[in-house]
Amino acid sequence: MNVMDALANAIFEKQNPTAVGLDTRVEYLPEGFFAPGEHFQRSAGEAVFAFNRALIDAVADIVPAVKVQVAFYEMYGTEGMIAFKRTMEYARQAGLIVIADVKRGDIGSTAEAYAHAFLSGTPAGEANLPAFDADLVTVNPYLGTDGIKPFVVACEKQNKGIFVLVKTSNPSGGEIQDLISDGRPVYEHVGLLTAKWGENLMGSCGYSAVGAVVGATYPEQGAKLRQLLPRTFFLVPGYGAQGGTAKGIANCFDSRGGGAIVNASRSILCAYQKQPGVHFADAARNEALRMKEDLLSALGGRIG
Amino acid sequence: MNVMDALANAIFEKQNPTAVGLDTRVEYLPEGFFAPGEHFQRSAGEAVFAFNRALIDAVADIVPAVKVQVAFYEMYGTEGMIAFKRTMEYARQAGLIVIADVKRGDIGSTAEAYAHAFLSGTPAGEANLPAFDADLVTVNPYLGTDGIKPFVVACEKQNKGIFVLVKTSNPSGGEIQDLISDGRPVYEHVGLLTAKWGENLMGSCGYSAVGAVVGATYPEQGAKLRQLLPRTFFLVPGYGAQGGTAKGIANCFDSRGGGAIVNASRSILCAYQKQPGVHFADAARNEALRMKEDLLSALGGRIG
Repeated sequence: MNVMDALANAIFEKQNPTAVGLDTRVEYLPEGFFAPGEHFQRSAGEAVFAFNRALIDAVADIVPAVKVQVAFYEMYGTEGMIAFKRTMEYARQAGLIVIADVKRGDIGSTAEAYAHAFLSGTPAGEANLPAFDADLVTVNPYLGTDGIKPFVVACEKQNKGIFVLVKTSNPSGGEIQDLISDGRPVYEHVGLLTAKWGENLMGSCGYSAVGAVVGATYPEQGAKLRQLLPRTFFLVPGYGAQGGTAKGIANCFDSRGGGAIVNASRSILCAYQKQPGVHFADAARNEALRMKEDLLSALGGRIG
Repeated sequence: MNVMDALANAIFEKQNPTAVGLDTRVEYLPEGFFAPGEHFQRSAGEAVFAFNRALIDAVADIVPAVKVQVAFYEMYGTEGMIAFKRTMEYARQAGLIVIADVKRGDIGSTAEAYAHAFLSGTPAGEANLPAFDADLVTVNPYLGTDGIKPFVVACEKQNKGIFVLVKTSNPSGGEIQDLISDGRPVYEHVGLLTAKWGENLMGSCGYSAVGAVVGATYPEQGAKLRQLLPRTFFLVPGYGAQGGTAKGIANCFDSRGGGAIVNASRSILCAYQKQPGVHFADAARNEALRMKEDLLSALGGRIG
């Protein structure tokens, strides 16, 4: 059993390959939800956490995972980081798998500190003390193997997982990722490195604990990567607001209808804006169910 | 005047192109300095800050800048992030230029949140509220222009700067960075993008607010990049513990003896371990002075 088994099983049980992206910021909150107090950052952090908690309560029985984008918490300073930590703890208690979208990457000794921070905990006497404890994190591959290895060690020792940025969803991702070298785009080289980094961390469902980020907005490249990396689990951002469609995303799943989890953030967090009179948490649940049906239908009705 | 003018002037005045890297962790602290209390992370954060403060006091008159590596603070959780913030504030008050080594990189909307967090402050009503306020940050280029643009906007509006990872100092950095495409390694493509991102942000000293990270451990590539990017300021990690020498690093400076700042972390933080009986702050100062002389001598006795 590795963490991708847990993820694959949760997706299978809920028949839903969706991660709800908690990219929460005060501008997204329903009117009246946020009243900045004397200490703006503290009230922002508290409002964001309260919103997240209600959202987690509303979707915990229908989605397998949440993805928490740390940037939107860092921008509220240390109070934001408290909200980040509390959100991950609350989601875990609600039985969800927690992906911290931190896209960290550095030289080995520094990458080890990041792995401590988000996966394995930090040595404290004889214990390892969690800092911002997630089940999986996203990592950036630009520094190569020695910047990834400390995360892989944490995957192995603490049964955690990572998603390596391979082909990102944004418009200019191709400027570096699509450069052709030795007959292959850079992102395929990164994909092959990703498979290598994870080759000794296979779970019983057949997926490595070292996964890949593959944007929903490039369906042809997704299909090619799916073929190239049969044992790599994909985290697929870009559905909804960024323009990725369920049909295109189907390319990122394998022949069993597994091997991928699709993230949506704004479309779920802000679903209440398109459902007048509906409570934001109910609106988020409605949208998560609609997305599930959309993905299921594109996948022929069955996941995993 | 842009932030690189401020950096170039500070280097010139102190005749020292060194940034002290505050990669402080409790394992580095002198014996007896850290006594873990009931709350390990809080006592760790407090001890790290106290150490940093003493170090800043000891070197503020002889170095132009500090580089604070956020990973070593994140690993102590929210208490670590408080120490990170306090360290940067204290360094700024001591007249130092503050480089937050965060290596962030993401799609546009997320990169904007990171730029808020570290450079421009976060919109809070009519104000921008600083979160973890630095003068310059390191950023990762893997997502291309739209992931960098929000940082460039902050550079322009708030007179801040960035260093884009071009050629990193670690052994396996070349796995992706050295792939050849169109006759050039990927890192040169990234270097040229870096120059383009910064072309409208030139300061009076001739350097753009968009700089580059160029590792000390690859002196030939440093020389080539220096030629290719005449108006790009380099942040050069890898001196000392990682094996970069002053002679090799000289390649990263331009013909005026300017355009680069060299970081050293472990060799300064832990200098006391090689100077028995000397207080850690004095030992750090001694080592910073030794490093200055080493660099000055490699640069022919004069900087900038």
